[in-house]
Amino acid sequence: MAEFDLIAAIRARSRHARDDVRLGIGDDAALLQPAPGMQLVACTDTLNAGVHFPAATVPQAIGWKALAVNLSDLAAMGAEPAWALLALSLPQADAAFVEALADGLARLAAQHGVALVGGDTTRGPLGLTVTALGQVPPGQALTRGGACAGDHVLVTGTLGDAAAALVLWQAGAQVLPQTDAQRALRQRLDYPQPRVAAGLALRGLASACIDISDGLLADLEHVCTASGVGAEVELEALPLSADLRASLPLAQARGLALAGGDDYELCFTVAPARLDAAQVALRASGIAARVIGRVVAAPGVRVFDAQGAPCLPTRAGYEHFA
Amino acid sequence: MAEFDLIAAIRARSRHARDDVRLGIGDDAALLQPAPGMQLVACTDTLNAGVHFPAATVPQAIGWKALAVNLSDLAAMGAEPAWALLALSLPQADAAFVEALADGLARLAAQHGVALVGGDTTRGPLGLTVTALGQVPPGQALTRGGACAGDHVLVTGTLGDAAAALVLWQAGAQVLPQTDAQRALRQRLDYPQPRVAAGLALRGLASACIDISDGLLADLEHVCTASGVGAEVELEALPLSADLRASLPLAQARGLALAGGDDYELCFTVAPARLDAAQVALRASGIAARVIGRVVAAPGVRVFDAQGAPCLPTRAGYEHFA
Repeated sequence: MAEFDLIAAIRARSRHARDDVRLGIGDDAALLQPAPGMQLVACTDTLNAGVHFPAATVPQAIGWKALAVNLSDLAAMGAEPAWALLALSLPQADAAFVEALADGLARLAAQHGVALVGGDTTRGPLGLTVTALGQVPPGQALTRGGACAGDHVLVTGTLGDAAAALVLWQAGAQVLPQTDAQRALRQRLDYPQPRVAAGLALRGLASACIDISDGLLADLEHVCTASGVGAEVELEALPLSADLRASLPLAQARGLALAGGDDYELCFTVAPARLDAAQVALRASGIAARVIGRVVAAPGVRVFDAQGAPCLPTRAGYEHFA
Repeated sequence: MAEFDLIAAIRARSRHARDDVRLGIGDDAALLQPAPGMQLVACTDTLNAGVHFPAATVPQAIGWKALAVNLSDLAAMGAEPAWALLALSLPQADAAFVEALADGLARLAAQHGVALVGGDTTRGPLGLTVTALGQVPPGQALTRGGACAGDHVLVTGTLGDAAAALVLWQAGAQVLPQTDAQRALRQRLDYPQPRVAAGLALRGLASACIDISDGLLADLEHVCTASGVGAEVELEALPLSADLRASLPLAQARGLALAGGDDYELCFTVAPARLDAAQVALRASGIAARVIGRVVAAPGVRVFDAQGAPCLPTRAGYEHFA
């Protein structure tokens, strides 16, 4: 199968209509009409087989996740997603694989009104690079740099589920999940839900925001560094799903919530005076968030237990070249 | 070396200032301010080691070329380049390699006023995916779809040089080029010059345009398919550089000019009434172009010699999964 048939397979699944797409897949580049006055928000993230997902991952999940991790970055900026481009490297042309991958990507794209407007399909080790483009009114983007001492630290959803799924998967040597809880964790690993609605709800309310891809501690540290502050996290406040509690010992679950990564939840800071408004806006968006700590002046991120004793995380956040 | 140091190495070389970059490398996404009323032009292209460039290519050339092939796509749309994102996969963290790669990319970016505004650095087989973003006034983009029977077919620059360099390199088992001509060909393989100025000059003058990456015949075929026409090319009209003529037999040189690929010249069509204006505009842009054939109603691309006899190309254009 030639490159151009692969593109056709992807194109056929990318029919989400946006009238701001003047020219989509099929020319040298896409032509898009930005909304007047809006700022453009752009990010790109790669998923490589064996590094970012187990080689045995089903192609639907690979396609979904490649877009999801990018929409998660847009969510962390408070941006509304609009368009995406997919660069796909494949060891050989495999129509069924590409169609399934495109199905997964298209399903998430449709949920967020994203049009796949271009890309590249080429030979190489299995890997995907998605570029996502969104829009935000000037001055309303959430960044990593605005956290102030005294702000609350919050996270959306629950942490550690995806990392737990990976632990269980690796322990079980790729045996299919056995329990409903394990299946639910695996769903969170394979089909992360980017918190786009939460990011939109937090415009004008959060002082800083980041998405959790490398683990809470590592990503909160990025916020602290960019903001010139530090943070204290309460171990018992970490939101853990019932599925995670049912599947792993509590200490291991908390370790994964702190440093496991692949959560694609938002970690953000809110001034005390805006906490109620932020919680109301988040509830309206359908995404729950919980206070897990506070911003302090001293640099660094520290974790404390209920007795106020410092805890050391069991391992550092994901380091790509560790 | 951690991922974040790699990003710092790239960031330090990406200081081209554009005041439409509100937030560059270092947050979850870049924040850009499109020019009022302009359309956004977006493309993405991957270069994988061993597929798109020989593994022994110097890193400066890899970085340059990853951006060049994308700026070439923007050129083919008549777009003015503005911003780029780089997703880099590396087998291991190698500071000197990344710095040299970033040097090459930054050098080309500076020539075209492009700001590198974001990216991703991750572990994986060596490969780069660049996304380039440009702008064009509404209605002025060049596409593949406007060629009409009777139009002239033109190409910028000369064809076959890069493919010849690859042939010579492979024949010489990576021995360094011996002659000035061979060195010049190698320069064209490693450091292609995207024809951005030509694309801008052709706004309102070319009826269709494409950049030549997979070989003249394959890419002209794309124009013909998109436009619902065919084309006839005169073998003797193909522009061949003196370096190419000095390095390979004429028949082989012409074969590479027809189907070698990696040229990153523009192939475009112009109505007879606009040919003089197009040539004047191109001369003003500093990029020469030559008429190599004409658009006809019958589908397909055919090549004829000086006697009007049909010629068969020696091989088809580059097929990624052939």
